[in-house]
Amino acid sequence: MNRTPLAIRRALTARIFIAAAALAMACGAAAQDSDSLVIASIYREALNSHAAYDNLRALCKDVGGRLTGSPAAAAAVELTSAMLAAAGADTVSLQPLTVPRWFRGEKETAFVDSERHGQVPVHVCALGGSVGTGPGGLRTGVVEVAHIDSLAVLADLVKGRIVFFNRRADQSYFNTFRSYSGAVDQRISGAARAALYGAAGVVVRSVTTALDTVPHTGILRYEEEGQKIPAVAISTADADLLSAWLRDDPGLQLFIRTACERREEVQSFNVIGELAGSDFPDEYITVGGHLDSWDLGEGAHDDGAGCIQAIEVLRLFRELGIRPRHTLRVVMFMDEEVAQTGSSEYARQAEAAGERHFLALEADHGGFTPSGFTIDVPAPVVDHLRGYEKYFVPYQADRFIRGGSGPDIWRLKELGAVTAGLVVDSQRYFDYHHSAKDVFGQVNRRELQLGSAAMAAFVYLLDRDESLEALLKR
Amino acid sequence: MNRTPLAIRRALTARIFIAAAALAMACGAAAQDSDSLVIASIYREALNSHAAYDNLRALCKDVGGRLTGSPAAAAAVELTSAMLAAAGADTVSLQPLTVPRWFRGEKETAFVDSERHGQVPVHVCALGGSVGTGPGGLRTGVVEVAHIDSLAVLADLVKGRIVFFNRRADQSYFNTFRSYSGAVDQRISGAARAALYGAAGVVVRSVTTALDTVPHTGILRYEEEGQKIPAVAISTADADLLSAWLRDDPGLQLFIRTACERREEVQSFNVIGELAGSDFPDEYITVGGHLDSWDLGEGAHDDGAGCIQAIEVLRLFRELGIRPRHTLRVVMFMDEEVAQTGSSEYARQAEAAGERHFLALEADHGGFTPSGFTIDVPAPVVDHLRGYEKYFVPYQADRFIRGGSGPDIWRLKELGAVTAGLVVDSQRYFDYHHSAKDVFGQVNRRELQLGSAAMAAFVYLLDRDESLEALLKR
Repeated sequence: MNRTPLAIRRALTARIFIAAAALAMACGAAAQDSDSLVIASIYREALNSHAAYDNLRALCKDVGGRLTGSPAAAAAVELTSAMLAAAGADTVSLQPLTVPRWFRGEKETAFVDSERHGQVPVHVCALGGSVGTGPGGLRTGVVEVAHIDSLAVLADLVKGRIVFFNRRADQSYFNTFRSYSGAVDQRISGAARAALYGAAGVVVRSVTTALDTVPHTGILRYEEEGQKIPAVAISTADADLLSAWLRDDPGLQLFIRTACERREEVQSFNVIGELAGSDFPDEYITVGGHLDSWDLGEGAHDDGAGCIQAIEVLRLFRELGIRPRHTLRVVMFMDEEVAQTGSSEYARQAEAAGERHFLALEADHGGFTPSGFTIDVPAPVVDHLRGYEKYFVPYQADRFIRGGSGPDIWRLKELGAVTAGLVVDSQRYFDYHHSAKDVFGQVNRRELQLGSAAMAAFVYLLDRDESLEALLKR
Repeated sequence: MNRTPLAIRRALTARIFIAAAALAMACGAAAQDSDSLVIASIYREALNSHAAYDNLRALCKDVGGRLTGSPAAAAAVELTSAMLAAAGADTVSLQPLTVPRWFRGEKETAFVDSERHGQVPVHVCALGGSVGTGPGGLRTGVVEVAHIDSLAVLADLVKGRIVFFNRRADQSYFNTFRSYSGAVDQRISGAARAALYGAAGVVVRSVTTALDTVPHTGILRYEEEGQKIPAVAISTADADLLSAWLRDDPGLQLFIRTACERREEVQSFNVIGELAGSDFPDEYITVGGHLDSWDLGEGAHDDGAGCIQAIEVLRLFRELGIRPRHTLRVVMFMDEEVAQTGSSEYARQAEAAGERHFLALEADHGGFTPSGFTIDVPAPVVDHLRGYEKYFVPYQADRFIRGGSGPDIWRLKELGAVTAGLVVDSQRYFDYHHSAKDVFGQVNRRELQLGSAAMAAFVYLLDRDESLEALLKR
């Protein structure tokens, strides 16, 4: 009979013991005050529930990509209204607004044509807001530049050609938003600046930390009075190829055909679900994300996750019988990606109605494991709020830092609100961002729910903080 | 001409400013001593390099799953030896050992046969170390139990039947290793315990935090003198179905056919690469992971990541011109999953040779974003080492806690070493663990490299700590 040697059994036992001991150490113990118990119940419910994950699946799979002003965006308004009702909102309402409508049209075509390699297709997509090339496309030589400011030096070469902005996102930073910020000027302003020198079009290296074969889109901004030239993003792998080919054959040509166009503005909506406050029904806590997304993927991380997490905050409150003192407003902001008309309109109406806003929390960095919050208040208020970090230690979401909140809620600061943003692990975000890869399958249920729980716990604690208002008024 | 409204441009500018401000806040500034600059250079090199990611791709795609004693495991020995040489090891050697060999054989078959649903295939795989059913398979009734201890109560029902252990991993914990530890007894001991009551076989709910359709394998342990009955894991989705069907139709039958078997022991190796220490060449720092994996996937997170990160520590030292004071030994331990013969043999030879071991660091929790280290030393030594946390704050790997190290290095504690384990975000680990989903595509290059950098920084700091030895001897 084949006996398991004793040494092996001992090792196996030791192995399990080590794992258990490591866990016991790692989990520690939070202060056993009642708030820590409430927060434990929030996390327990979030981690065990599939409600939010199922909602995100529906938003991604039944609706999918939902570009501002598109029929899919209208469907997302319907769907998330129903989700808010199902989560237990006292009221669900739609806030009308007028949004721009940009339409991608037929899938883009692009190929490199060089003596050495012949015609080789490359992966591109139109940048958001770009004009199209027309059905004949654009075919001309290419000038590669790393910095927008290099255009001035290359002025004569640029004329009539396609400018290829190929500066990489710097991988050196821990926070990939910093990598992104350092390269996104090419996408936002590249076309406008190249047009000043007579360029015929621009190709921009996708702003991502991934080396992949899918293009990542995003908004561009033309100069108001300037020439509008077609602009596409090219995948990072194709950008490396194009750059190598250009070194071999500076005379190669690039063909691009895009059918995108700006259409008439259309009506759309912010979606708002409320849970009435017990003590201050006329003072508001806004929790939200943006409902629109780019059209190439499913808008799973950007920002389906944030919307669904905001709905989940309301559901968690309902499920656990937590009644907020201030009225909790879950807001799905429309049109963050193109013109932020949703957040503008929300803030405008709040101001017009003389609403008092107590807190606003935004989630728009993807459904990843949270590490804490950025809070946009004076330093003494941050110091006060850091007193709550201890509640988040068991969940490693205890890094409260002074910093910006988010593009959809920063305006509410002027209405008195503490504005804050959920901070999450950023390593994978730009793998998916604005591309066909931003799909439901890339979201982990537990990571998503750790975000929901962190947001709910943050709202719970601040909502009950009677000294916070006094501190804000000082 | 379509002009961009001023308000939109302002909002867009504000949005970028907010992001930049948040980042500036989030990145902070580490103390500008020379060690923090060295560590910054380690992270910069790690985050910009593709070397480790390319190595992991080769291990996963060119070799793939590498069960202890298999030809693939032998190929992995060859491949990682070459990687160590390429990374700049002074010497690369193979430490021979004899390992058990378990062979899965033909893919498993299983179906439920019920009056109501007919024959429905379910997803199962043999548990590691299990005996096979024989070519005729096993077909009998099923008894579901949640706890091993329930077997005593159900004794009469169990005889001749298949026991279906269906306790879920508890999702409530932040650390999924805790969820895993709470459910894995079914997999390890279920077959042995059920055999005591005359069961014909066992089906174990996959020990994972995912609800999916792939089975997750792992080692089982028979009683030395007991009956050995066939054991399979069933996917969590199939387990839920089977449970529901059993409620409808307790008389349903389950058919299982597995062809797995234990074969003769074979020779295998630990792979060891050294970088000689400048001051203490005869004292060792061991950094490692385990080279073997289960056969269903590619062993990407478990533990290709840990092996490749260990090699990367050596490469980073070489690339940055860091000479360790103690000899750095990168060890790919063989046979962690089945019998830990590799780690036993390494410790045995170290002891026999009278080697002094200064530090041992293991990475075996997947290639995810690190949060810190567990360190298995007396509390005063942990307190001392926590003085290094400040260096890891910019990378959010600053949680140093007292706890177990890892199954491949814990024995080195007896040889005087500080033993430690890299702790990483555990949310996704058990999605992939021991299943066909543990593939290269699930590893993010930056997350992997944050682990490599954290390990290299930890080794760098402790290697130079002259007061640590004195503290250990006290």
